[in-house]
Amino acid sequence: MPFTHTIRPRYAEVDMQGVVFNAHWLTYFDEASTRWFESLGFPPKETFFEGGAFDVMVVRAELDWRGPAGFDDEVVIAVRPAKIGTKSFAIQLRARVADHDVCEGIITYVSVVPGTKESRAIPDVLRERLEAAVDGDASG
Amino acid sequence: MPFTHTIRPRYAEVDMQGVVFNAHWLTYFDEASTRWFESLGFPPKETFFEGGAFDVMVVRAELDWRGPAGFDDEVVIAVRPAKIGTKSFAIQLRARVADHDVCEGIITYVSVVPGTKESRAIPDVLRERLEAAVDGDASG
Amino acid sequence: MPFTHTIRPRYAEVDMQGVVFNAHWLTYFDEASTRWFESLGFPPKETFFEGGAFDVMVVRAELDWRGPAGFDDEVVIAVRPAKIGTKSFAIQLRARVADHDVCEGIITYVSVVPGTKESRAIPDVLRERLEAAVDGDASG
Amino acid sequence: MPFTHTIRPRYAEVDMQGVVFNAHWLTYFDEASTRWFESLGFPPKETFFEGGAFDVMVVRAELDWRGPAGFDDEVVIAVRPAKIGTKSFAIQLRARVADHDVCEGIITYVSVVPGTKESRAIPDVLRERLEAAVDGDASG
Repeated sequence: MPFTHTIRPRYAEVDMQGVVFNAHWLTYFDEASTRWFESLGFPPKETFFEGGAFDVMVVRAELDWRGPAGFDDEVVIAVRPAKIGTKSFAIQLRARVADHDVCEGIITYVSVVPGTKESRAIPDVLRERLEAAVDGDASG
Repeated sequence: MPFTHTIRPRYAEVDMQGVVFNAHWLTYFDEASTRWFESLGFPPKETFFEGGAFDVMVVRAELDWRGPAGFDDEVVIAVRPAKIGTKSFAIQLRARVADHDVCEGIITYVSVVPGTKESRAIPDVLRERLEAAVDGDASG
Repeated sequence: MPFTHTIRPRYAEVDMQGVVFNAHWLTYFDEASTRWFESLGFPPKETFFEGGAFDVMVVRAELDWRGPAGFDDEVVIAVRPAKIGTKSFAIQLRARVADHDVCEGIITYVSVVPGTKESRAIPDVLRERLEAAVDGDASG
Repeated sequence: MPFTHTIRPRYAEVDMQGVVFNAHWLTYFDEASTRWFESLGFPPKETFFEGGAFDVMVVRAELDWRGPAGFDDEVVIAVRPAKIGTKSFAIQLRARVADHDVCEGIITYVSVVPGTKESRAIPDVLRERLEAAVDGDASG
């Protein structure tokens, strides 16, 4: 079974159409990915910084909205690895409210030297856990 | 020449890596598209609401980050129509700082009955101006 | 004991100084107050809207920052009624990380006719629970 | 005449009540204060950072909402010094739409060693210009 993280949209995040404004989905997906990395053994406050295990920058995002999510809805976001390259990898995020899809995203990260914008090969410790997550997800 | 809109990233929008946090690009692109629709003859406060000329919902976004943009940089966003369908259309947005690309987006909108989430054919008044914008851009 | 609500600052909410940008505290306090109203028996999605039990608008906020809160800190926000008037009331929110104060707020709301900006006396159902919350807090 | 800065609320910043969500006022006031410091001779990108002329942290904010501001309204924010102490100073910000007040704020800053959270006396270069701004405002 894939990892999931639940978010309840704040009043501040809902627009005049009564739905979550589109930009907040990238923030929700960032929060969900933080918790997902944590589930792989990377504590957020020690990981993404100078001296940490690794650091990443987002280089591409694809988002598809499938249906509405509103104030205080229970938004369940499933996260799983989508593609693992040499210096970059992508994750897929699927957000659902009750039994309908609301937003799906593919976020591509490039591995960088912590504290810089210089790309480098995905560190082994991260690669191993990403690959394990693919396997774990497939068998779930 | 394509339409452009300039934004200066706020201190609040820049993260610990010293760059604009990714989600804000969707907000910047929304602001740029609002000004672009205005340039086509659709005043923002009269257009996207019940009783207005038309209303749209974002159904898809693709974003590619090419380089950094930081606090108070002069971010110039060029907007042009990318694709015009029956019920939906897409626009392309290219953000530059000085002479380097920072973010490119393709945003797809579906036309809806104002005040609802029900899709409908792009109204003629909008279609005509989108098509004129394609032509104007090509000749610019 | 006062009601508390816990928030973990998102990466997007932390600025270049490494601390939560000041404006987000009003959003955190809004989320905490939503959960606090819920604890008083007012479900968020049924309460603050046309046809709901009551609606409020924020008319005043005082915020004092006492210390830093950073990315993914466990921020515990205590909420209690601070003052109950005829048409308006105030709540006090105190945010702590571990054993140090980070932000204190006093938010004043005015009761409005749901779906409008017209002020009116605090409805009895709300007044009773606000007063019970004062008593419960005092005895806690 | 006081310094003014104009902001047009983004669609993303307006809530289901059709008004700017309260937290955004702190962001608007931060943007207005950045432009005001610039008007005093402090370029934003060179000023508030390690090696810059000075740095500040917000320690207190008082906000009073007087009336509604909505999507794309022309919000004119007047800024002037309100109080100048040894290590801290306050500015007053008044936001108007057309001829009605919408939000007033008093923001108190403490002077810190750039790049740190350590307070220090307001540097002379800043104090002189704050005092000149008080005088200029009084004679305006």
